[in-house]
Amino acid sequence: MKDLFVGLDLGGTWLKYGVAGADGKLLARGKKPSHGQESREVIFGVMEEAVAEMKAATADVGQLRAIGVGSPGIVDYEQGKLVGGAPNLPHWEGADIRGELGRRTGLKVYADNDANVMALAETRLGAGRGARNAIFLTLGTGIGGGILIDGELYRGSWFAGAELGHVPIKFDGRKCNCGNVGCIEQYASAPGIIQTYRELCEAAGRTCPDEVTTEHIFGVADEDKEAAETIRLTAYYLGVALSGFTNVFNPEVIVIGGGVAEAGDAFIRKVEDETKKLAMRESASRLRVVRAQMGNEAGTVGAILLAAEGYAKEKEGRA
Amino acid sequence: MKDLFVGLDLGGTWLKYGVAGADGKLLARGKKPSHGQESREVIFGVMEEAVAEMKAATADVGQLRAIGVGSPGIVDYEQGKLVGGAPNLPHWEGADIRGELGRRTGLKVYADNDANVMALAETRLGAGRGARNAIFLTLGTGIGGGILIDGELYRGSWFAGAELGHVPIKFDGRKCNCGNVGCIEQYASAPGIIQTYRELCEAAGRTCPDEVTTEHIFGVADEDKEAAETIRLTAYYLGVALSGFTNVFNPEVIVIGGGVAEAGDAFIRKVEDETKKLAMRESASRLRVVRAQMGNEAGTVGAILLAAEGYAKEKEGRA
Repeated sequence: MKDLFVGLDLGGTWLKYGVAGADGKLLARGKKPSHGQESREVIFGVMEEAVAEMKAATADVGQLRAIGVGSPGIVDYEQGKLVGGAPNLPHWEGADIRGELGRRTGLKVYADNDANVMALAETRLGAGRGARNAIFLTLGTGIGGGILIDGELYRGSWFAGAELGHVPIKFDGRKCNCGNVGCIEQYASAPGIIQTYRELCEAAGRTCPDEVTTEHIFGVADEDKEAAETIRLTAYYLGVALSGFTNVFNPEVIVIGGGVAEAGDAFIRKVEDETKKLAMRESASRLRVVRAQMGNEAGTVGAILLAAEGYAKEKEGRA
Repeated sequence: MKDLFVGLDLGGTWLKYGVAGADGKLLARGKKPSHGQESREVIFGVMEEAVAEMKAATADVGQLRAIGVGSPGIVDYEQGKLVGGAPNLPHWEGADIRGELGRRTGLKVYADNDANVMALAETRLGAGRGARNAIFLTLGTGIGGGILIDGELYRGSWFAGAELGHVPIKFDGRKCNCGNVGCIEQYASAPGIIQTYRELCEAAGRTCPDEVTTEHIFGVADEDKEAAETIRLTAYYLGVALSGFTNVFNPEVIVIGGGVAEAGDAFIRKVEDETKKLAMRESASRLRVVRAQMGNEAGTVGAILLAAEGYAKEKEGRA
């Protein structure tokens, strides 16, 4: 019987989940409303159901050994607990994921921040496969980050590091929701890109449709001067941020995921060009900037890997 | 007989050096012109003399086991070799410190970037004593950086990381010598601070003395509005940069050294206040921002620790 691991990818709207061996190759998967607005009790109930479903689906194949969870917010990896809030899950702060889900399932539970879990998937099996030192950024409604140092996720002294979206690139720039000024999130997240487009349209005396999306902006760039300029500026802003990460981490690879990265490889090439132009020659010479490969499965597969690696380390420690 | 280690702190003008046991308590020290403008041969000759002098001074106390060297430029720690240039040592690029100094002295040689070596001294014995995760910045003519991760220096994939002075904080800011735009070095190094003061004086219609120094600016702040504003802005610029480092590393401590830090503790308190105001609450809540304690000895003592730790690890590996 094979050792199997369930991965749970928790969001404000959906719980995505899957089951696999330590290789991360999904044997079954699913998706349920997470009821993120409701109580912890309700959310844990959804998680418990998902685990039961994955267990039933693989009863003939192997034995469930552990559960991995990727959650929004700041997660104390050592304790498997939320230590900060998650805006889209208003009652989730303080949730004892390891304790509660462990009691409900009888399994060992490993929990981490959702961006960390995605970074794990991309650096083990995706676009950053094989890297020892890597940076992962996910560009969506916000910007999440993950840092791989010497092959392991770096979480910070109290699990509140790797907030790569909240690095200022303009000290007199746009105010950020986090309280800081000029964070890269304000320029390269979807809302940030849309704001740049609005500002350019306004400056050009154009009216900008109310419901503009980043897909629209990337789609019309060939015939829309302000859209093209928005993309140029966004690649530059990202290049500025990534040049800083490059000079600090001298990483082998920077992996960019999230909805904005789906704009395509041409955009990622522009970001790589800007980064290499701005970063120090020695720090950037062997750097690759690449698009994430795991797509929507990064969270689920990363959570499975988190569980598989945690389980393996614990077994080693006991041996 | 005690195991002793020589530390060499190489600069463009001076070679500073000392000798100590693994505790870093200096038993003897010295200083010679480094002849940084001259050939590698000449510089290695000065280093060799310094080692001989330290050996003679401690012949009764113990046995020299290894040499540690802090050098400007990008140093491949594994090979003990310069892999990038050092502007103040025009012929130093490519110098094989381990090979050449090893041949001349018969001792094992460990070499690293000078800021890394200072970071080691401050995090082992100075203001960051005991920290597992720490950031070190030295503010002088330029800005050097060191990163401690899980108790060890983080050097990057190819030893070109930890260039903390070359992180942009303004994407449309001052051009940097490194080719980037808006690097913190352009705002918080001594020349950067002086530039801020000149700009403020000019805007106020004042003439600024040609030979103004940061000591002057800090000294006259009580009666000079532009000087006071320069200090306020510099603390803010540093706070912006440090808020980014805090959100990325969630360090226990950030240690600030170099000539600018000698402006005093009141200035460091301002920098800490700005950092904590701007960084994410969870990342900054337990952070300390402190002034370096090792002063001029940081380079020498750090080089000694580099040698002592390298020697201990190698011995362990052989055992």
